[in-house]
Amino acid sequence: MTLPRIGVFDSGVGGLTVLKAMAAQLPAHYLYFGDTARLPYGTKSAETVARYAIGATKFLEAQNIDLLVIACNTATALALADIKAAAHVPVVGVVEPGAAMAAEVSKNRAAIVIATEATVSSHAYRNALRQHGLEAHEKACPLFVPLVEEGWIEHPVTEQVARIYLGEATAQAPAGADVLVLACTHYPLIAPLLRRIVPATMEIVDSAASTAQVVRKMIEENLASHPERSGLAPATEPSRRACPGLVEGTSISGAMPSASAAMSSAAHRTFRFYVTDSVEKFKRLATRFLGRQVDNVEHVDLGG
Amino acid sequence: MTLPRIGVFDSGVGGLTVLKAMAAQLPAHYLYFGDTARLPYGTKSAETVARYAIGATKFLEAQNIDLLVIACNTATALALADIKAAAHVPVVGVVEPGAAMAAEVSKNRAAIVIATEATVSSHAYRNALRQHGLEAHEKACPLFVPLVEEGWIEHPVTEQVARIYLGEATAQAPAGADVLVLACTHYPLIAPLLRRIVPATMEIVDSAASTAQVVRKMIEENLASHPERSGLAPATEPSRRACPGLVEGTSISGAMPSASAAMSSAAHRTFRFYVTDSVEKFKRLATRFLGRQVDNVEHVDLGG
Repeated sequence: MTLPRIGVFDSGVGGLTVLKAMAAQLPAHYLYFGDTARLPYGTKSAETVARYAIGATKFLEAQNIDLLVIACNTATALALADIKAAAHVPVVGVVEPGAAMAAEVSKNRAAIVIATEATVSSHAYRNALRQHGLEAHEKACPLFVPLVEEGWIEHPVTEQVARIYLGEATAQAPAGADVLVLACTHYPLIAPLLRRIVPATMEIVDSAASTAQVVRKMIEENLASHPERSGLAPATEPSRRACPGLVEGTSISGAMPSASAAMSSAAHRTFRFYVTDSVEKFKRLATRFLGRQVDNVEHVDLGG
Repeated sequence: MTLPRIGVFDSGVGGLTVLKAMAAQLPAHYLYFGDTARLPYGTKSAETVARYAIGATKFLEAQNIDLLVIACNTATALALADIKAAAHVPVVGVVEPGAAMAAEVSKNRAAIVIATEATVSSHAYRNALRQHGLEAHEKACPLFVPLVEEGWIEHPVTEQVARIYLGEATAQAPAGADVLVLACTHYPLIAPLLRRIVPATMEIVDSAASTAQVVRKMIEENLASHPERSGLAPATEPSRRACPGLVEGTSISGAMPSASAAMSSAAHRTFRFYVTDSVEKFKRLATRFLGRQVDNVEHVDLGG
């Protein structure tokens, strides 16, 4: 059996939390593209983000991928339809899996979504949650990404910032909100800190882990019907119905797969990384995200 | 007399502190280019920054500028020589004016430089200060820009972060360091907060205000010899010798020109802004930086 080739796209290193969650569940060749020369997408317009994401999609398709994961909330929120229209392989975004998981675990049908400014402005999560019958308040937390990239994962400043952001979010949230959606791929790294701040009755849903489960499901279903690697059936963003197992397993924050689990069985997983800016800086941050030494990083230039 | 046309280039809104300082001193047509679709430059490689900056230089030259100010520490630090080689007008960066000012005010010939990661990695300030006979410790402060852009100018979190960064910087600084160089154009906005944290004996030098003084000097000297607008004499980055008045006036932080001073005599100053991403977001941030409503903002697309 030939392993599937899974393209993973993000503006930078955040999508590595999605890669890590997938690698823990699914043997595959992973091709990760980090558009580090043009990050962060979180402050950019929809047109700009779509243009960048489609450029990366074309690049990954030229590497012969079977499926593309948009492991970037901003790109999914602002440009998923454009990316799907331009792509020739099935495309999975991170918004719908996170929303579906939130719907699974919320008793009160009310959620708080924390994300970058662009993801919040797009209202992609509010709209997706509404499809599942949940009301949501979306809160932009622009300092979390730089705090994570500074390495202040367990730091008093990060805790103070989190208390301010979550205090503001809670004050504006719909009554009874009982689920917190981490709608930025950087946020799983501060999930333990957030867990200490939010009430014990509040579930934390991590869209990185939720997406990994959806992708595993898609690949497994496809392999069951086509044992050798072949073009996967074109897919729309998977619906809750398509993923009955979504609530189980690793999708609740705090249950991120460990580095050893994620990176074991190396013979059944290969990793290749492409970045548009400094290889060294990517290696340094990626090591923090994946919890292991990262090699096999190549610089590519998409122009601009 | 025709007013000079001064191009001002930055990756985003930070260069507006340089624009504000210039506008307070010098009647001119100001054309500001903020490469907001590709910010921040502070995390990017020298090659990428040079490519972006030269694209912006070509755009501003096509708008008929007489002089170009690289109002961005990262672009100056990483790409000034490349920009000068590509430009057909005199180019002024922000590094040398800040270093010259620090040399003027330091008694102990020792400085602390705070900046973005890329500016620090380039050691542009350390090298420039050494030319003036000063030793320096350079400290990266990656959280200051997002804190300023969040609007947390006078905020306990910003103060806590500043105490951590400056504590680390002081511990590693050369003995007797008596000047703090704000080597990022965002930092003048938190200068009052920094002033409360550093010892009273430490001078704070603001490279935005220092650069404005150098530009005024260049324009005045040129106008004295050529009363009508004409091509300015090609210039290298101005040396301390060329700017005898550098220590006077507004260059010490805390003496940033007021919004009313900067924007008075409107008849003798015009402003035009070009940005590569959202016009609305730029207007919102620019209003905070300039302390006045900002209009006349146009979106441009340089590709990529």
